[in-house]
Amino acid sequence: MKNTLIRDLFLKPEAYIESEIKVSGWIRTTRSSKTFGFIELNDGTYFNNLQIVFDDGLENFADIEKCSIASSLIITGTLIATPNAKQPFELKAKEIVVEGYSTPEFPLQKKRHTMEYLRTIAHLRPRSNTFSAVFRVRSAAAFAIHKFFQDRGFVYVHTPIVTGSDAEGAGQMFRVTTLDLENLPVDDENKFDPTQDFFGKETNLTVSGQLEAETFALAFRDVYTFGPTFRAENSNTKRHAAEFWMIEPEIAFADLTDNMSLAEDMVKYIIAYVLETCPEEMKFFNERIDKGLMDRLSHVLNSDFGKVTYTEAVDALINSGEVFEYPVFWGADLQTEHERYLTEVIYKKPVFVINYPKEIKSFYMRMNEDQKTVAAMDLLVPGVGELIGGSQREERLDLLIDRIKELGLNEEDYWWYLELRKFGTTRHAGYGLGFERMIMYLTGMGNIRDVIPFPRTVKNAEF
Amino acid sequence: MKNTLIRDLFLKPEAYIESEIKVSGWIRTTRSSKTFGFIELNDGTYFNNLQIVFDDGLENFADIEKCSIASSLIITGTLIATPNAKQPFELKAKEIVVEGYSTPEFPLQKKRHTMEYLRTIAHLRPRSNTFSAVFRVRSAAAFAIHKFFQDRGFVYVHTPIVTGSDAEGAGQMFRVTTLDLENLPVDDENKFDPTQDFFGKETNLTVSGQLEAETFALAFRDVYTFGPTFRAENSNTKRHAAEFWMIEPEIAFADLTDNMSLAEDMVKYIIAYVLETCPEEMKFFNERIDKGLMDRLSHVLNSDFGKVTYTEAVDALINSGEVFEYPVFWGADLQTEHERYLTEVIYKKPVFVINYPKEIKSFYMRMNEDQKTVAAMDLLVPGVGELIGGSQREERLDLLIDRIKELGLNEEDYWWYLELRKFGTTRHAGYGLGFERMIMYLTGMGNIRDVIPFPRTVKNAEF
Repeated sequence: MKNTLIRDLFLKPEAYIESEIKVSGWIRTTRSSKTFGFIELNDGTYFNNLQIVFDDGLENFADIEKCSIASSLIITGTLIATPNAKQPFELKAKEIVVEGYSTPEFPLQKKRHTMEYLRTIAHLRPRSNTFSAVFRVRSAAAFAIHKFFQDRGFVYVHTPIVTGSDAEGAGQMFRVTTLDLENLPVDDENKFDPTQDFFGKETNLTVSGQLEAETFALAFRDVYTFGPTFRAENSNTKRHAAEFWMIEPEIAFADLTDNMSLAEDMVKYIIAYVLETCPEEMKFFNERIDKGLMDRLSHVLNSDFGKVTYTEAVDALINSGEVFEYPVFWGADLQTEHERYLTEVIYKKPVFVINYPKEIKSFYMRMNEDQKTVAAMDLLVPGVGELIGGSQREERLDLLIDRIKELGLNEEDYWWYLELRKFGTTRHAGYGLGFERMIMYLTGMGNIRDVIPFPRTVKNAEF
Repeated sequence: MKNTLIRDLFLKPEAYIESEIKVSGWIRTTRSSKTFGFIELNDGTYFNNLQIVFDDGLENFADIEKCSIASSLIITGTLIATPNAKQPFELKAKEIVVEGYSTPEFPLQKKRHTMEYLRTIAHLRPRSNTFSAVFRVRSAAAFAIHKFFQDRGFVYVHTPIVTGSDAEGAGQMFRVTTLDLENLPVDDENKFDPTQDFFGKETNLTVSGQLEAETFALAFRDVYTFGPTFRAENSNTKRHAAEFWMIEPEIAFADLTDNMSLAEDMVKYIIAYVLETCPEEMKFFNERIDKGLMDRLSHVLNSDFGKVTYTEAVDALINSGEVFEYPVFWGADLQTEHERYLTEVIYKKPVFVINYPKEIKSFYMRMNEDQKTVAAMDLLVPGVGELIGGSQREERLDLLIDRIKELGLNEEDYWWYLELRKFGTTRHAGYGLGFERMIMYLTGMGNIRDVIPFPRTVKNAEF
């Protein structure tokens, strides 16, 4: 008999009720009396378990009764509707075959575990309700992002992970090398010689694919990246990991307004997609992880995102009379406390803050006419603060070179980036969405370590 | 007036013919006489160009006439059907605004360039026909893969890029470090101390996400990875890059037959999807890159993939009487020449070779009853040779430990991998598809450097 997925039972029960079916999966819980027992079976294809009823009519009843949590079973039986019970149906077992036994040492017994402990068993935690929900939502959200951009004709570009340039200057990088650290090569003057490394020079892990994505935007018009990025920052916070995934769309013949419009559409699309495809998981998060979650997400879906300038935002913060840990003044970078106050208290909805002082933003952002601010945008959302950061890019060669010099960067390092401005430059814009931050936002999970399958942080690269 | 994408003109011309529209894009070619001119405009959204007709009725006629290739333009005009011309329609320009000038130094002038030269301008080559087609097909194929697995309920899992274990032992790895190579830390005995590195130990770039994917398969049943992987091999061939993307599905309650069935469905799905969504690009490849391409792909689509054992394949090669560079005997690894002979000459279609001698395969592959072969599978396809490699995994704890010991591996390094076999083990299987090899197969491109946006190979990490 063909195996039936538990997902299919829940999505179209009418096709299976009163039929004999075969299912397979892992025991989540089990209990029994002398003559009968119940098993909650999960086969990984659906958040909910299938209830199995078995009795001593089974010739291996004594064996099944003793099966530990996590044991894998193959069960043949009849699906019975149970309109008066908690679950809509149950499987009356005719035959149960043990595929693989577990033991009482299985760490995920039916009790509460701390998130910290669960991180130490990252190879098993996807078998818990919480992480089963987190990683299914992560998968759905990833696909939503691809579908959103592909439906609009965007070209997906794999920008390089190993990079020879520290072009964006966005923080500490990891070095990539094949040199033997215990026997480093030296040059004629007995100094360390990086040219003998695999790539013939120093290379690092990328912090952003933006600059490379721009080259593709000036060929394909609308492109996006979706890949891993890295920060070697020695910071141990709930929101930072050394390895995370990022989405970076880049659009040509487009300005900051087009960029905001794209970001708003994308965020709403991801939320709507996940609510539709993962209803059981989202219900679980709303009940068990973050009781305000569904209200917050619905509110975002139904809001027109606001738009204020940095100058207006700073004025509003100053005029609010609120006392902040970090002082607010024109020229200061906004901290999470400011960002959350703006989106949660003042504007009460997602809001784009645009036109930041050039001093606190990157060299590639387009200079505004005031010569003081650049066409940057940060999207702030309730509950999180900054979700997206982006900008219109400086497409004017002379102004871009001015900024590179002003910041003391090496013009030669940007030869190919500058050539984009020599050969048919166009207005263009783009932004970055940290994928894990989006997952935290969608699920209410409070620590980035709990939305990454095998997180990499300071002093931690287990598994 | 709103901008119209050139893609939309080609996909539904009837909606635009005789209408006034605005388009924007880059000049691919331009020619003019005293009073009128033609521009082939590409806006990146479609493979084909839009022909623009302009004349001296434009007040900036002299300027437009002189515009170099690659200049970006915004053009308003009327779309006219041209049933007797090569192109189905053209745009009669009423106004042309130059968004960004180019110069005659633009390297992609209208002449043949070598692939080698084009690699040196990887930031500009997507503006050529060949690379516009390659990278759009790459994007479409990536989405096809996600869609194939998501439609079947597979969970997409991001396995780690930085790894603390050389668990698979699949070749040379790149080290990841934040240590200052000119000032390495030492321990009390003045020996190099890797514990002072960012992650507290030696870490490397992953060669495969398989082992981690298995942990998720034993929770979600059907999962897949799609991410970058790395090989630090000092080999300078047309088929190897230091950084490439790989797809690794892993399925639980499944054996080698299920695995082959999944691989066959996937390959056919990707081909069908790309043929349907990129017809112009595929026509281009078939005409300009590889004249046998479409026939070969159609043949694969319409073949039931074959299945032979390694032992049968070796016999067939020996009995063929063909003289090979590498000798064929039972126990030898199959070389590309053998693989291609099998799929192209002997079986004349895609063929799975299964049950390889355990000596030439990895420790995690499931031991067959003969105790000599393991449940491995390689998919060989005409024109390429090996496209996919996979296996049923050893789910029996004792046999897995035996193999680990037999190969002299360190059992402790695999503690979490072994635990999967202790707590509800199940039959499971999976395979790896090298994404670039699939793109080469789909496009007929002969060098892996020409299907990666910014390839990384020995001594090369430019851009």
